[in-house]
Amino acid sequence: MGNADFDHQYSHHHQRVEIPPPKPFLKTLMSNVKETLFPDDPFRKFKNQPLSKKISLGLQYFVPILDWAPRYNFQFFKADVIAGITIASLAIPQGISYAGLANLPPVIGLYSSFVPPMIYAMLGSSKHLAIGNVAVPSLLISAMLGKFVNPHENPNLYLQLVFTATFFAGVFQASLGFLRLGFIVDFLSHATILGFMGGAATVVCLQQLKGILGLVQFTHQTDILSVMRSIFSQMHQWRWESGVLGCCFLFFLLLTRYFSKKKPTFFWISAMAPLTSIGYLKKGINPPSYSQLAFSSQYLTIAIKTGVVTSVIALAEGIAVGRSFAILENYDIDGNKEMIAFGLMNIAGSCTSCYLTTGPFSRTAVNFNAGCKTVVSNIVMATAVMITLLFLTPLFHYTPLVVLSSIIIAAMLGIIDYNAAIRLWKVDKYDFLVCVSSYIGVVFGSVEVGLIVAVAMSLLRVLLFVARPKTFVLGKIPNSMTYRSIEQYSVASSVPGVLIIHIDAPIYFANASYLRERISRWIDEEEEKQRTSTEIELQYVILDMSAVGNIDTSGISMLEEVKRIADRRCLKVLLANPGGEVMKKLDKSNFIDTIGKEWIYLTVGEAVNACNYILQTCKFQSKRIDSSATPDDNV
Amino acid sequence: MGNADFDHQYSHHHQRVEIPPPKPFLKTLMSNVKETLFPDDPFRKFKNQPLSKKISLGLQYFVPILDWAPRYNFQFFKADVIAGITIASLAIPQGISYAGLANLPPVIGLYSSFVPPMIYAMLGSSKHLAIGNVAVPSLLISAMLGKFVNPHENPNLYLQLVFTATFFAGVFQASLGFLRLGFIVDFLSHATILGFMGGAATVVCLQQLKGILGLVQFTHQTDILSVMRSIFSQMHQWRWESGVLGCCFLFFLLLTRYFSKKKPTFFWISAMAPLTSIGYLKKGINPPSYSQLAFSSQYLTIAIKTGVVTSVIALAEGIAVGRSFAILENYDIDGNKEMIAFGLMNIAGSCTSCYLTTGPFSRTAVNFNAGCKTVVSNIVMATAVMITLLFLTPLFHYTPLVVLSSIIIAAMLGIIDYNAAIRLWKVDKYDFLVCVSSYIGVVFGSVEVGLIVAVAMSLLRVLLFVARPKTFVLGKIPNSMTYRSIEQYSVASSVPGVLIIHIDAPIYFANASYLRERISRWIDEEEEKQRTSTEIELQYVILDMSAVGNIDTSGISMLEEVKRIADRRCLKVLLANPGGEVMKKLDKSNFIDTIGKEWIYLTVGEAVNACNYILQTCKFQSKRIDSSATPDDNV
Repeated sequence: MGNADFDHQYSHHHQRVEIPPPKPFLKTLMSNVKETLFPDDPFRKFKNQPLSKKISLGLQYFVPILDWAPRYNFQFFKADVIAGITIASLAIPQGISYAGLANLPPVIGLYSSFVPPMIYAMLGSSKHLAIGNVAVPSLLISAMLGKFVNPHENPNLYLQLVFTATFFAGVFQASLGFLRLGFIVDFLSHATILGFMGGAATVVCLQQLKGILGLVQFTHQTDILSVMRSIFSQMHQWRWESGVLGCCFLFFLLLTRYFSKKKPTFFWISAMAPLTSIGYLKKGINPPSYSQLAFSSQYLTIAIKTGVVTSVIALAEGIAVGRSFAILENYDIDGNKEMIAFGLMNIAGSCTSCYLTTGPFSRTAVNFNAGCKTVVSNIVMATAVMITLLFLTPLFHYTPLVVLSSIIIAAMLGIIDYNAAIRLWKVDKYDFLVCVSSYIGVVFGSVEVGLIVAVAMSLLRVLLFVARPKTFVLGKIPNSMTYRSIEQYSVASSVPGVLIIHIDAPIYFANASYLRERISRWIDEEEEKQRTSTEIELQYVILDMSAVGNIDTSGISMLEEVKRIADRRCLKVLLANPGGEVMKKLDKSNFIDTIGKEWIYLTVGEAVNACNYILQTCKFQSKRIDSSATPDDNV
Repeated sequence: MGNADFDHQYSHHHQRVEIPPPKPFLKTLMSNVKETLFPDDPFRKFKNQPLSKKISLGLQYFVPILDWAPRYNFQFFKADVIAGITIASLAIPQGISYAGLANLPPVIGLYSSFVPPMIYAMLGSSKHLAIGNVAVPSLLISAMLGKFVNPHENPNLYLQLVFTATFFAGVFQASLGFLRLGFIVDFLSHATILGFMGGAATVVCLQQLKGILGLVQFTHQTDILSVMRSIFSQMHQWRWESGVLGCCFLFFLLLTRYFSKKKPTFFWISAMAPLTSIGYLKKGINPPSYSQLAFSSQYLTIAIKTGVVTSVIALAEGIAVGRSFAILENYDIDGNKEMIAFGLMNIAGSCTSCYLTTGPFSRTAVNFNAGCKTVVSNIVMATAVMITLLFLTPLFHYTPLVVLSSIIIAAMLGIIDYNAAIRLWKVDKYDFLVCVSSYIGVVFGSVEVGLIVAVAMSLLRVLLFVARPKTFVLGKIPNSMTYRSIEQYSVASSVPGVLIIHIDAPIYFANASYLRERISRWIDEEEEKQRTSTEIELQYVILDMSAVGNIDTSGISMLEEVKRIADRRCLKVLLANPGGEVMKKLDKSNFIDTIGKEWIYLTVGEAVNACNYILQTCKFQSKRIDSSATPDDNV
């Protein structure tokens, strides 16, 4: 084998598995809480600084504009102005369209592109995020609130509820940030969001068929079956001229987008194109709306529920978009701080006639491509929108619904990312399943059904993963001391008389009984195999604990049961490489004494060597092995 | 270092990390489903058997009595009769007491000790489980149903709802078993059940103060504050004679139990003691009750909800108890099969005037200690109960409430296992927290609140563990090729210029952004440290993937981001020992090409050797390292 020197070296003075030094309980607790709630360690730079520096750092932390404003220069400003005007030209038609999705007056969409971006510019940590209202939460608002209050029959109450929902969305977002619970958003996986957004975009497009076909009556349901029934039941009322106009405009929009992708300088055309369709709007900037927050309404719980659900979706989109562009430009985004910024921006918005806003992907991508340098582009955009509100609105005429519908469809088609879905299928089938389920939930059920399906599927995945960890048998890689999965490595060969089981997950209550079941099945199968062959009888079971990051009391009971099962079959159990946390708990629960300290090894290789040594010594002495012999006695 | 030979050997013809051979999608899917739903592989013994053998094995699988009946002998029978009579003497008073907890007529408790044990004897796979009604689900039934139907004002409707709830409990249990969803019960961790049971026992004891103090009026709430208020507001109505009698009887019961623990032969006295208190009961065995199942009642949903909640608690207790004794006697219990047995037994019970039954711990322990050999002891018990029902009931007199209360308190005090709670505190603080939370939830809130708290805490633990995995830095163990946590091993020393980060969990959407954050913080800290020292500059980051059992698409994006972050700081990222599943996905997503195949090593040791080789070669050639150099080019 060529390892004789090694056996010698390892078995004589090998390193014992250490139990980490005990830490006081409070210290452990504090470090765990810190790791859970402050994974980015925001206090790091405050350490060892004088008080004045600490205060100025603290202010810069909460109001990032103080951090970068002193370094702002004219070069940056020029770039930001260009980018700001570009996104304003996108924000105006999009704001109007999405307000329509939420069944709100068009001007609310413009208001929402004025105050919130200003607030975000002070507090936000992303340089590229462009703030505004977005399609999916808009649709969700009308779906959730519209069930209780008809926006056409009772527009004032509906508007009040929308502002109230926005207020609670802001409060919820800011609280998540203050309580450092940002990781809740992480539980909406990429696949979930992909499917959910795709489904919502499909639903939004389907709804636009009303405008494109010039229909007057339309279903209030959002699922595809109701929409199709509604459309095909009134075929005689289709207005073909409206359809042709809509398709042409849509084609024009898609064409400009196609060219802008081919050649970035065409972005201007793509961004400006929707501008040709702005219609008549009320003059004047945002009126205050704090007196309209309906805290004593009978629909308060509905408003709170709508606020919480839409705020999570908005957060997930805004943070994901912000992070993507931050990585492209190599700076960091603090999720919790972003949540506070989003939250305060929405609270302020709800008091100034705005509804829910976040950082939409399309607008941010345009902002980035137009060369923005800092969040000042948001201020420029807001100023442009303000000027529009103050002076330009009377210049515009009535916009046909068909044009707004085309704008929405063009934006939505970009959101349905089927290439990403195909990639999911190729790389991870379960992720694809999650994605498709939430898509189907949205399109065939409703936006809420899709959301519930998506969250449930994501949670199920986490639970299933914890409940059913992988275990596999290890074999020796030739010419090394390394042991690896026999399934993965064709060259790995099993060791006669020794079964090495690798447990590939922490041992928790949720998987303890499964692991017990699975390990005894591995032993059964191995004994079966060796009964039919002429190989040496199975005598040792090595549990490779390298990947067992933690263990709880149920897990320790499981190990004790495995030990008992093995004892009854006259098998010896060895542990290889248990981690610090595991060793601590095994020690406290006295399992180390149960199994015997001398049967715990630093590596699988050392454990196998110990087994082989005894096997050989005993073969020499007698045929039957004394299972109580310890390697240390013999070596 | 003494490892020169090794470096040579490893770097020249070292084993590459293999991507496991691709499996067809359907095969992977089938094997995953099988591992999830059939972890015990029940079909194993059916393989390669003739059809007739298969049929007989199948029958034995579903009706285990066919398996062991042919081997049954007179020795077994003698032991089972003694054990059966012993548990019957416990079952009669306990049945009456617990029926009282559920606000049911006492005789229902006796009925429940007749039919269900008979059914279980045919279908169950445990040899020692003694079947009967139990305290906690009884209390839950009266708490959940009593809110809607007053058992004293409307006893018939209440009884119908109890039977209906029992029916649905049975259907739910059997479906869980048939659908192989037994693992749902695993999510109630040991700590959760410990706290929940302790809390429920406390609540039950508090309720018995009504009987002990001889009070007529009593609160319908179960929380400790309401009970205390109710008791101390009517101090003038306390009947001291009743209190004294109750305490004496309780003392007698505890004394006999104490002696039976000291000397197992005293078990008879402990078990017989409660028998002295049986009162007057209606004569005759179970009347049929299937016509009383209230499927069309307006309270049907309440009955279903009660059935589902109580069935899960009953299952958790029954399966945990069965498994504990099976391990003591070295045989296996099939959780899913047990669920089917429990389910069918409760469906049958609901049609024969029984309410929810399971395998209670106290009765099973007595059964085991009385020396039972097979489940025939249940048949003997059922027969004894039947004889009591047919002939003996008129002999007994009215039993004072105070005696029943004492019996219940004595049984409940055994359930409150504070030693186990202390052990939890010592071994695992979070488990202790879960246990205490569910205890407090039950005692200060209600049984349902406690249950919700307990399940939520258990789920939170799983989610937190997935969301916040451990990462740590590895160092070299002297005189070996092994790298281990610097925190755990005091002898481990870090390698200059190389940062080795061990990721101790699968990389999923739920932890991807945390890990990105944490890894970049490790790099920051390492660069900080090396800036202040005179050591060699940080140039390599090795990610030890040994414990990364799986990765999803969000995880792969995370690795890509880490790669980009490292690139920007002119650091080279290496992977050590990615597992089969991970390699497959890294390959499909082209991440292997991104990082470069030559930067993936089988062990941390090999990765470090490669880094060191380049560091030394380059130091020799120039001061600045060309980060595009691959080790294979150089070696």
